[in-house]
Amino acid sequence: MKIGYGGDYNPEQWLPEVWKQDFRLFDEAHIDTLTVGVFTWGLTQPGPDVYDFTVLDRIVDRAAAEGRRICLATGTGAHPAWLAKQHPEVTRTDFEGRKHRYGQRHNSCPSSPVFRRLSTEMARRLAQRYAGNPAVIAWHVGNEYGGACYCDLCAAGFREWLRLRYGSLSSLNAAWYTTFWSHTFTDWDQIEPPSALTEHWRGPDHTAFQGITLDYLRFMSDAMLANYRDEKSAIRESDPRTPVTTNFMGLYRPIDYHRWAPYLDFASWDNYPPDDRSPARMALAHDLMRGLKDGQPFWLMEQTPSVTACRDVNPLKRPGVMRLWSWQAVAHGADAVLFFQMRAGRGASEKYHGAVIGHAGRADTRVFREVAALGAELSALGGITLGARTPARVALLFDWDSWWALEISDGPSRLVRYLDVVTAYHRALWTLGADLDVIAVTAPLDGYDVVVAPALHMIKGDLAERLSAVAFRGGSVITTFLSGRVDENDNAFLTDVPGPLGELLGVRVDEWDAREPVYVNRVRVGDATFQSRLLFELVLPQGAEVVGRYEEDWYAGTAALTRNDFGAGHGWYVGAGLDCAGLTWVIRQVLERHGLLGPYPDLGEVETTVRVTPDGSRLLFILNHGSSPVDLPAVPAGDALLPGDPLALEPYGVRIIHMIT
Amino acid sequence: MKIGYGGDYNPEQWLPEVWKQDFRLFDEAHIDTLTVGVFTWGLTQPGPDVYDFTVLDRIVDRAAAEGRRICLATGTGAHPAWLAKQHPEVTRTDFEGRKHRYGQRHNSCPSSPVFRRLSTEMARRLAQRYAGNPAVIAWHVGNEYGGACYCDLCAAGFREWLRLRYGSLSSLNAAWYTTFWSHTFTDWDQIEPPSALTEHWRGPDHTAFQGITLDYLRFMSDAMLANYRDEKSAIRESDPRTPVTTNFMGLYRPIDYHRWAPYLDFASWDNYPPDDRSPARMALAHDLMRGLKDGQPFWLMEQTPSVTACRDVNPLKRPGVMRLWSWQAVAHGADAVLFFQMRAGRGASEKYHGAVIGHAGRADTRVFREVAALGAELSALGGITLGARTPARVALLFDWDSWWALEISDGPSRLVRYLDVVTAYHRALWTLGADLDVIAVTAPLDGYDVVVAPALHMIKGDLAERLSAVAFRGGSVITTFLSGRVDENDNAFLTDVPGPLGELLGVRVDEWDAREPVYVNRVRVGDATFQSRLLFELVLPQGAEVVGRYEEDWYAGTAALTRNDFGAGHGWYVGAGLDCAGLTWVIRQVLERHGLLGPYPDLGEVETTVRVTPDGSRLLFILNHGSSPVDLPAVPAGDALLPGDPLALEPYGVRIIHMIT
Amino acid sequence: MKIGYGGDYNPEQWLPEVWKQDFRLFDEAHIDTLTVGVFTWGLTQPGPDVYDFTVLDRIVDRAAAEGRRICLATGTGAHPAWLAKQHPEVTRTDFEGRKHRYGQRHNSCPSSPVFRRLSTEMARRLAQRYAGNPAVIAWHVGNEYGGACYCDLCAAGFREWLRLRYGSLSSLNAAWYTTFWSHTFTDWDQIEPPSALTEHWRGPDHTAFQGITLDYLRFMSDAMLANYRDEKSAIRESDPRTPVTTNFMGLYRPIDYHRWAPYLDFASWDNYPPDDRSPARMALAHDLMRGLKDGQPFWLMEQTPSVTACRDVNPLKRPGVMRLWSWQAVAHGADAVLFFQMRAGRGASEKYHGAVIGHAGRADTRVFREVAALGAELSALGGITLGARTPARVALLFDWDSWWALEISDGPSRLVRYLDVVTAYHRALWTLGADLDVIAVTAPLDGYDVVVAPALHMIKGDLAERLSAVAFRGGSVITTFLSGRVDENDNAFLTDVPGPLGELLGVRVDEWDAREPVYVNRVRVGDATFQSRLLFELVLPQGAEVVGRYEEDWYAGTAALTRNDFGAGHGWYVGAGLDCAGLTWVIRQVLERHGLLGPYPDLGEVETTVRVTPDGSRLLFILNHGSSPVDLPAVPAGDALLPGDPLALEPYGVRIIHMIT
Repeated sequence: MKIGYGGDYNPEQWLPEVWKQDFRLFDEAHIDTLTVGVFTWGLTQPGPDVYDFTVLDRIVDRAAAEGRRICLATGTGAHPAWLAKQHPEVTRTDFEGRKHRYGQRHNSCPSSPVFRRLSTEMARRLAQRYAGNPAVIAWHVGNEYGGACYCDLCAAGFREWLRLRYGSLSSLNAAWYTTFWSHTFTDWDQIEPPSALTEHWRGPDHTAFQGITLDYLRFMSDAMLANYRDEKSAIRESDPRTPVTTNFMGLYRPIDYHRWAPYLDFASWDNYPPDDRSPARMALAHDLMRGLKDGQPFWLMEQTPSVTACRDVNPLKRPGVMRLWSWQAVAHGADAVLFFQMRAGRGASEKYHGAVIGHAGRADTRVFREVAALGAELSALGGITLGARTPARVALLFDWDSWWALEISDGPSRLVRYLDVVTAYHRALWTLGADLDVIAVTAPLDGYDVVVAPALHMIKGDLAERLSAVAFRGGSVITTFLSGRVDENDNAFLTDVPGPLGELLGVRVDEWDAREPVYVNRVRVGDATFQSRLLFELVLPQGAEVVGRYEEDWYAGTAALTRNDFGAGHGWYVGAGLDCAGLTWVIRQVLERHGLLGPYPDLGEVETTVRVTPDGSRLLFILNHGSSPVDLPAVPAGDALLPGDPLALEPYGVRIIHMIT
Repeated sequence: MKIGYGGDYNPEQWLPEVWKQDFRLFDEAHIDTLTVGVFTWGLTQPGPDVYDFTVLDRIVDRAAAEGRRICLATGTGAHPAWLAKQHPEVTRTDFEGRKHRYGQRHNSCPSSPVFRRLSTEMARRLAQRYAGNPAVIAWHVGNEYGGACYCDLCAAGFREWLRLRYGSLSSLNAAWYTTFWSHTFTDWDQIEPPSALTEHWRGPDHTAFQGITLDYLRFMSDAMLANYRDEKSAIRESDPRTPVTTNFMGLYRPIDYHRWAPYLDFASWDNYPPDDRSPARMALAHDLMRGLKDGQPFWLMEQTPSVTACRDVNPLKRPGVMRLWSWQAVAHGADAVLFFQMRAGRGASEKYHGAVIGHAGRADTRVFREVAALGAELSALGGITLGARTPARVALLFDWDSWWALEISDGPSRLVRYLDVVTAYHRALWTLGADLDVIAVTAPLDGYDVVVAPALHMIKGDLAERLSAVAFRGGSVITTFLSGRVDENDNAFLTDVPGPLGELLGVRVDEWDAREPVYVNRVRVGDATFQSRLLFELVLPQGAEVVGRYEEDWYAGTAALTRNDFGAGHGWYVGAGLDCAGLTWVIRQVLERHGLLGPYPDLGEVETTVRVTPDGSRLLFILNHGSSPVDLPAVPAGDALLPGDPLALEPYGVRIIHMIT
Repeated sequence: MKIGYGGDYNPEQWLPEVWKQDFRLFDEAHIDTLTVGVFTWGLTQPGPDVYDFTVLDRIVDRAAAEGRRICLATGTGAHPAWLAKQHPEVTRTDFEGRKHRYGQRHNSCPSSPVFRRLSTEMARRLAQRYAGNPAVIAWHVGNEYGGACYCDLCAAGFREWLRLRYGSLSSLNAAWYTTFWSHTFTDWDQIEPPSALTEHWRGPDHTAFQGITLDYLRFMSDAMLANYRDEKSAIRESDPRTPVTTNFMGLYRPIDYHRWAPYLDFASWDNYPPDDRSPARMALAHDLMRGLKDGQPFWLMEQTPSVTACRDVNPLKRPGVMRLWSWQAVAHGADAVLFFQMRAGRGASEKYHGAVIGHAGRADTRVFREVAALGAELSALGGITLGARTPARVALLFDWDSWWALEISDGPSRLVRYLDVVTAYHRALWTLGADLDVIAVTAPLDGYDVVVAPALHMIKGDLAERLSAVAFRGGSVITTFLSGRVDENDNAFLTDVPGPLGELLGVRVDEWDAREPVYVNRVRVGDATFQSRLLFELVLPQGAEVVGRYEEDWYAGTAALTRNDFGAGHGWYVGAGLDCAGLTWVIRQVLERHGLLGPYPDLGEVETTVRVTPDGSRLLFILNHGSSPVDLPAVPAGDALLPGDPLALEPYGVRIIHMIT
């Protein structure tokens, strides 16, 4: 066994001559894993009562015969044209209230009984047919679940979901605070999906009733989860063991992946970073995906070998970058490295998307050569990394509910975006080299010395107590402005801000200023001064020590940054939108206290992670994300699993040290 | 009697313990006036045939028992959920043609018979119930009327409105100039509301037929006025005397407040300036509101004590600013100073909106302390300002028809915005300290020495004659580019520009240039040079004296600014988009001629106004809008009604001098 | 005979007194040609079964009596209100799926049987009535055809169009590459118009299926062409000879004018450049329009004498510019110079559009005086230019299919716009003074020494062979990045890029980088260095000589610009988004080789064209587009047909030299 290598493959688009060419090139590139059938519904069910697996049989048989492993998709990510024509209910109604007709993909209403029945039946038949095939090593349900629907079927589903959640209209009215603006609901049927035609203006983030919108986000995530679960159950009827997954999208707002994770046998995701300056962001996404299943390895289900097509501007991955990012995935827990796509399509909207094999079918392109070289390298490495875990003592909390609640709020500032805050804190941790887990607010915190919870807007359940326990036993908890504001229904706590976190943090916040991005208030911390922007909470210490104070404006001298002694540990509160240097200063204090700085905290473009293999080996991954060579001061003793001088990394260089401990 | 102090209060959202806490805090802050019931329709009519005033009774009784004065709202600004479900006709159809379902507020179709019947019935029943209560000192009908509806009921209402206006289709066709683009209407039913589905593209300002769009704006304003009048009439059935108002929004385009004003017993408005650098703009809005009822005092119905919530960025009012802006309202004619809101809501879209009492219910916040201090100050002042009038000899014309006509025109420049022009001229008057009235074009002009009419695009009735009369008897009239262009149907005058104003102004304009904002043409006036932007009319004097000429481009040397001797006075024409310095130069000439400069024309951030009380006392208000202290050269002899050195104002300082005359 | 002079005239909007005034002013300005009836459908057919030509008779009779020539419009560019009310099918459904109601103009669904029947009937009746009138010298069908409709009638029309094009669903599925995303169509009725409700997101350029969108663009252009052809056929029933046209809009994307051209008897177009710095762009548009009919003279059907109204900012044409641009039209092949509009409308959306006669009806305005002066000049010139041709040896290929295909593609860059590329290459040709034809990709290439084909994305038919033949016989062919990518169905060629052009160009392209506009990669060419932006193809020479190489980034040293010897000529490939200087360098090499530089290649603002009259005379037009005087080094011997020193051009000056050859 080794790291799976390959990707999305759609031979149904091609003639047999091309298949033959493909497999020759796959051998040349050490391709051993193929994801097939992702958009084959129209092929496998060409009409209402007709199923035809001829072509898919041929694909699976051929791949199996060549020794390839197959990740078999149910193909339900796009419904066939005949289905939309025969049952208009299967298409979605969008946020603007417009009923769509047939087109695109990811186009099915999750509440449609017809869609649910037929997609499940497709999964059932596929499992019946291919369950016994040893080449099939995983099931891939649907594709990149997401978007939303606002049709009447979803309205009915929403009401049913609400009935289960609240039991009574009086509970619902209380949760949604409907006395405001005369909104008291006296019948379930009065409730409408929150859209441009009801509670919203300007767009999906501007709502008159946060509670309604928040619940609809939760409902829609659950409704699609039900679609996934339908198909998984149907697969399990014939195939009790082969793992089932679906491809997630990393930092994707519409779906609460934490609520989905229990139903996946392993996580997998598609890595399309917004630009080529995103190594920290990719690391965050990898860690979030790994955290979905308690640290269990995941698959990198898709990445482009070269270019994307869907952006306004699609830059080319420079030499070495595809390899570097592939190893980064492994460094963060990937057991498979897969591409979209194996061969470039001729037509439609992804014909210019990068592929291992281009339109001309050449093996002598730069891209193919790099893919083949990485294939050889992965083969040489073998299976040592498989099943390895990350021994993190730092946790970063990530919470879809806080994300949603924060960004659909009116006030204090639309410019404060959840991901911006989270990625800023993560970047500081990443720069300083801490091994970290990204976890849900419901995850156990016992194993961590440091818990960072940026913009923890919503406090649910016993979270405040568990955070306090971390500090009490000597750990450090860091949180920020706009934390501890609302309960699980997005109703403000009727206490001082930061609500249930007040005791842990030893502060109170009565007021806050919000400003345009051009406005800067400096924060003095000891001898240093940092900039802060966007949001400025006026922190009133209630026992906490003042670490930083504002220097500008009428609240100059007011606390902006505090640290509270709590038990044997600390509760930090960052009340201002500190800049990168400021955040790095705070995080460094905390990591140093716990001895958790990485080996190269001052080499900003060098990333390291540690993985511990099932047999207890410790692997140190060293990745140079810079375009310049880097000399390392030292590396731990051990065997180098990749070629190259361990102390001198070339641009985009990668090393793996099998540490002697 | 004294200035009313308090604001919007929604105890129906809270439990009795909280009520108790509220009233203790109200006492502490000298709160004597509460606006209640603004969004209680769902509470008072929980179903089609069910009325329930239990909670409202309790609120009113409690407030009355505590000696508070009540501004009682009819609560019809948002309809209940059951109503929208039972009668879908009550919800609006938007400009895009989308029928809305239940949600938000200000959501009722003004033409819906069901809405009209039930909202009127609600007002009727409230009046029947509370008319005799001496604590009820005013009725507050609906809330912030505005928006628009484009449904079929409104289409029918529009056709009826047109029939009354035009009598015949041939008159209508002539008014709308329908021969253009084959638009002749041969049946009333062919007429559609002008929307994105009919005459418009890009948005509400881009129309193929200005006449249709203009009339729809007038109709929609009238339709909502009818809603207001319905409710007022129903109140008057039981309560013949208590004054009735609704809260206006200042410089708000969709509603022609001049057409509404006769039906209000006093004006009131909600002051939410776009930013904290808007003292002149607020002054303009105050004066506009005061001018609605011929100078009669108005109420400041809402302002935030601290922050708004609906903006992208919601900055915090700094210490002293809430007090300063409250006194500014009084300086311009307010008899009440009220907040939105007394207690912060827990949930929904205004939970982060500032409030006198925050979520924690504290009295020791900065905001509460400032509110309480102002309460004490207002109590100490007593009733001296009540009923006082502003003795202005300068009038600024403000005209919704010109606003609409200018901004829905194709050409010459979409960048020339009515409010920009008006606020620029007002700012010059404000900076120079002139006491002024902002009045409708139909208001008598006899009492004024100076009439400023920026962008007076449309000339209706005898306006040109009345303006000429001002100049003839020795006054000064100032108008600008794009004035005198169209008649009341937005049809161009078939004469030289500026149409009926030509004789008064002694100029003719055949052509004009429009340019992007980066382009500047300098205008030389004597030894000074000013910049002009956006629009450049080539002014051909026909008797007028040239005061300023363009310096740039092929029309260098052409007149840009003229003054015409007319009778004993002057008609000024400003053909170019002059900068602030240029406008101030022009306005200063005029004010100096009439001896109407304020006491501190060179102290840009010091505002003054004079009010004359019913007993003839003259009160001079002095307000320092700057963040620095200011020394005044002198102040009139008199008693200082607020503490502090009259000659040395602290930042945001306020003085009131009871002048000895 | 002489150049027609006049324009759009709508006396139906006016009373007889005004008509009289108009005709007196027309005489004063040498106006001899009037376009009448452009929006008269509501006038000529006031009801379902009522036709009334009384007013139109009067207009035609009066004009004829005064000796004016008439371009008679069918008036079907806007349908009457009664028609939309009685037959809602005639209004369009927009891209967002919204059915429109009555409003605007250009508002008819092209597939509506009712619209087709009644518009055709109108043309038939007009022709029956006015065919014999010698004053009627041309028919003007509809007006500025364009926009699109997405209604069910168009859906049905689209399916019929597809059936004719593809014959079978299997052909259609192959052409559209429907295996991708499960899109296989199994019944024609499953096919929907590609809109915001089906295949599109973000807007008309973002589609899941390029093939569907491309075919809908073709269908919609054909559907409107059918409308035009309907009317033309109806005219031909009574009038077999008078030429028929419609007014095009130059560089207008929605309509493939090359497919329309065979059905026009002469081309005509409306020239409203985006700003006053567009002489090259106007030249391109003139040449494109002339190229539609193989070089046959066209009419300038509309231009404004002064200002437009529909822009956000509508600048004024400075003195001399209207004359200059009128002569530019003639220099490029116009046989008529017409204005929109003769008299300014009083109301609606064009009341501020410039006109020969303004609202006041004056003859002493600058604009009228310039119009009259040009009228005198045209009269003095007489008929010498009529029917003249342009003797170009340079061809610029212009292709609506490539335009559409390029701009609806996902990847590599949305920022690369077809017109930007074409206008950049054209500008280089224009600056260097080459006489050129702008032609369709189907036009014969035999007569050209140089063929420039920027962004020739789609290669159809025998185009590659014909381009090769140009080079083979010694010519030069220039093409660029993103050429040779797709076949006529927008499917990628399964060969190396640039597909069928590879042999001619001697290069291969495996990969390309796309970047934001701020990124610059320099390209070294000999001793010079040019900037390139947006798109960077990595050109691998396969026989071609490398002329320029990238200087930056990891592909520094890679070829960016190549020239291939092919037969006796050259195939140039420009792989980078070169700046203006770079393009000019390339074009200059090529023009110099063929001796085709214009007389003043270094005088950037001086434009020249040559026209050869039917009797073989050669006329050299010299136009100074600059605001400064220019001295010419020399002019060819000949007679000056316009006044002024031939060697010294005033700002905006024009000369015509009747060359002695």
